[in-house]
Amino acid sequence: MDQQETEISELGEFGLIDRLTKDFPIQHTQTKLGVGDDAAILNFGEKDVVVTTDLLLEGIHFDLRYVPLQHLGYKAAIVNFSDIYAMNARPRQITVSLGVSSRFTVEHLDALYSGIKRACEIYNVDLVGGDTSASVTGLVISITCIGDVEKGEEVKRSGAKPTDIICVSGDLGAAFMGLQLLERENSVGAGQKDFQPDFAGKEYILERQLKPEARKDIIELLKKEGIKPTSMIDVSDGLSSELLHICKSSGVGCRVYEDKIPIDYQTALMAEEFNMNLVTAALNGGEDYELLFTVPLTDHQKIEKMKGISMIGYITEPQLGAALVTRDGSEVVIRAQGWNAFDGEDK
Amino acid sequence: MDQQETEISELGEFGLIDRLTKDFPIQHTQTKLGVGDDAAILNFGEKDVVVTTDLLLEGIHFDLRYVPLQHLGYKAAIVNFSDIYAMNARPRQITVSLGVSSRFTVEHLDALYSGIKRACEIYNVDLVGGDTSASVTGLVISITCIGDVEKGEEVKRSGAKPTDIICVSGDLGAAFMGLQLLERENSVGAGQKDFQPDFAGKEYILERQLKPEARKDIIELLKKEGIKPTSMIDVSDGLSSELLHICKSSGVGCRVYEDKIPIDYQTALMAEEFNMNLVTAALNGGEDYELLFTVPLTDHQKIEKMKGISMIGYITEPQLGAALVTRDGSEVVIRAQGWNAFDGEDK
Repeated sequence: MDQQETEISELGEFGLIDRLTKDFPIQHTQTKLGVGDDAAILNFGEKDVVVTTDLLLEGIHFDLRYVPLQHLGYKAAIVNFSDIYAMNARPRQITVSLGVSSRFTVEHLDALYSGIKRACEIYNVDLVGGDTSASVTGLVISITCIGDVEKGEEVKRSGAKPTDIICVSGDLGAAFMGLQLLERENSVGAGQKDFQPDFAGKEYILERQLKPEARKDIIELLKKEGIKPTSMIDVSDGLSSELLHICKSSGVGCRVYEDKIPIDYQTALMAEEFNMNLVTAALNGGEDYELLFTVPLTDHQKIEKMKGISMIGYITEPQLGAALVTRDGSEVVIRAQGWNAFDGEDK
Repeated sequence: MDQQETEISELGEFGLIDRLTKDFPIQHTQTKLGVGDDAAILNFGEKDVVVTTDLLLEGIHFDLRYVPLQHLGYKAAIVNFSDIYAMNARPRQITVSLGVSSRFTVEHLDALYSGIKRACEIYNVDLVGGDTSASVTGLVISITCIGDVEKGEEVKRSGAKPTDIICVSGDLGAAFMGLQLLERENSVGAGQKDFQPDFAGKEYILERQLKPEARKDIIELLKKEGIKPTSMIDVSDGLSSELLHICKSSGVGCRVYEDKIPIDYQTALMAEEFNMNLVTAALNGGEDYELLFTVPLTDHQKIEKMKGISMIGYITEPQLGAALVTRDGSEVVIRAQGWNAFDGEDK
């Protein structure tokens, strides 16, 4: 440990919380009481409150050998904001709980919190509480996000109707290919002192993996255009998995066209380099944090004009099931092969 | 693994969540949307929303060698409810996130959830979401609790005034002595096949450690009697630590009388058996989940008549500091020696 580093035990639990949270401004008058009491107090008046939570565990959701702590903090906040936007709501407050192993210094946590703080600034969210503890094992990050939505404006997974158009924002598969690249460079470079990873021209897929954004812009754009999706979900586990969630919750089937799935050029190049199936990466890769939603057929023309949104298929009667229509016109049943946190136990 | 046990991977993440959460009824019309979407939706109308969160880590906050999973689930919920009551609010919803190591079966998680469910039933709280993941290390439980409070009725740590009476519910130190007993019996019994732990006549301190309750009854009693505390906190880290929180937040000092601190007979016997200082156990033991609060001097007579509440001292001007008045009349400065999750790193 060099001289700039501070042992967490020097500050103690409350000293640490003070240090980590003191620079977070309260941005909403709605936030009546933030960090520093038994609980936070929020005033939501006549809006509905929206709540989501995510648990990130070292060795399962992230690998500190190649994920910078600032980025990890940023991403940990973003994945929660993304869930709130997926309800057509706005994130307003978060609580952050940390389990910290003894190899961490205060400066490490400063870095983690600087990423959380940046995300809170950009997305206009208040930090209002949390819990901080030692961990005998790896780093644990548990974030709960609270948002609000005007009554009647919420969008659930359950409202999709046959003939609705299936839309997705941005492009898919990039975060997954970014992860493959990071893992490869990490294993190639292991033990080599002056190893320089080869990231040139691959900035986009790396950023998609390390520093994703939540699609606040899409929610605002849809509102501006007067479009209210009939169902919506964010793409965290992979397009296949999310399509099945919408179909199951809405009691419908779907057809999605392989050639309509939006994929970035860097993602395609990387898949080729890895000799991976590009569509599989896009369908099952996950961590895209794009919005998958359905709109009535009558919104077709409006959506067509909107940048950054792709129409990839349509909703069917339930008995038709969920299928991918391949380039040659055949249908392949969609199965959830997205990221599953319990998969590891089968391998 | 015997034939009744089910591997978690057999169910997968979503199957597991379905199984664990399906028997939780929604009890509040306020809960518009519960488990099964990107986020829950709550309608709080004209009340304020109260939010708290707690992170429990295996090896730090609990030891599965002597904590039954049902009790662990119950306690994990209770510690959050206790924080909500400490704001003079009512718990309404929780989210439960779990990190589960591979040695756990579905039946283990059923047991954990049965404890959470029992707590939710008794305290009238809805489960509205969560996140479930594999963990490469120990069990991780992160619970966030949401409550409500009429505007203006909230009680913070910061309202104590000089001459206010300091009150505490129930008795202190029992959960700490229960933990000492569990640890002793566990180490005595280690490796002995037919070892029978000696728990006779010690049921109270064991229950205080393993299955604590949150003081909903005290909140209701105070309301009924027309008493609104000027400040309040729940005793999770130990009386000393909580007194200092109130003093710091309120900008005051305090005097607490050693002989007024409520201690149960079993706690006293156990302390004697362990040759421990009883007052130290009561001051610094923690995990009591009692309510520590201050009331104006004018409420003295009302409080005196209320069962289960002890008046233990009074609030002073800040320059007098926080001190314990011992049985012989001398003053000892109160220092926070309560439970600190980072203490282990110093040892």
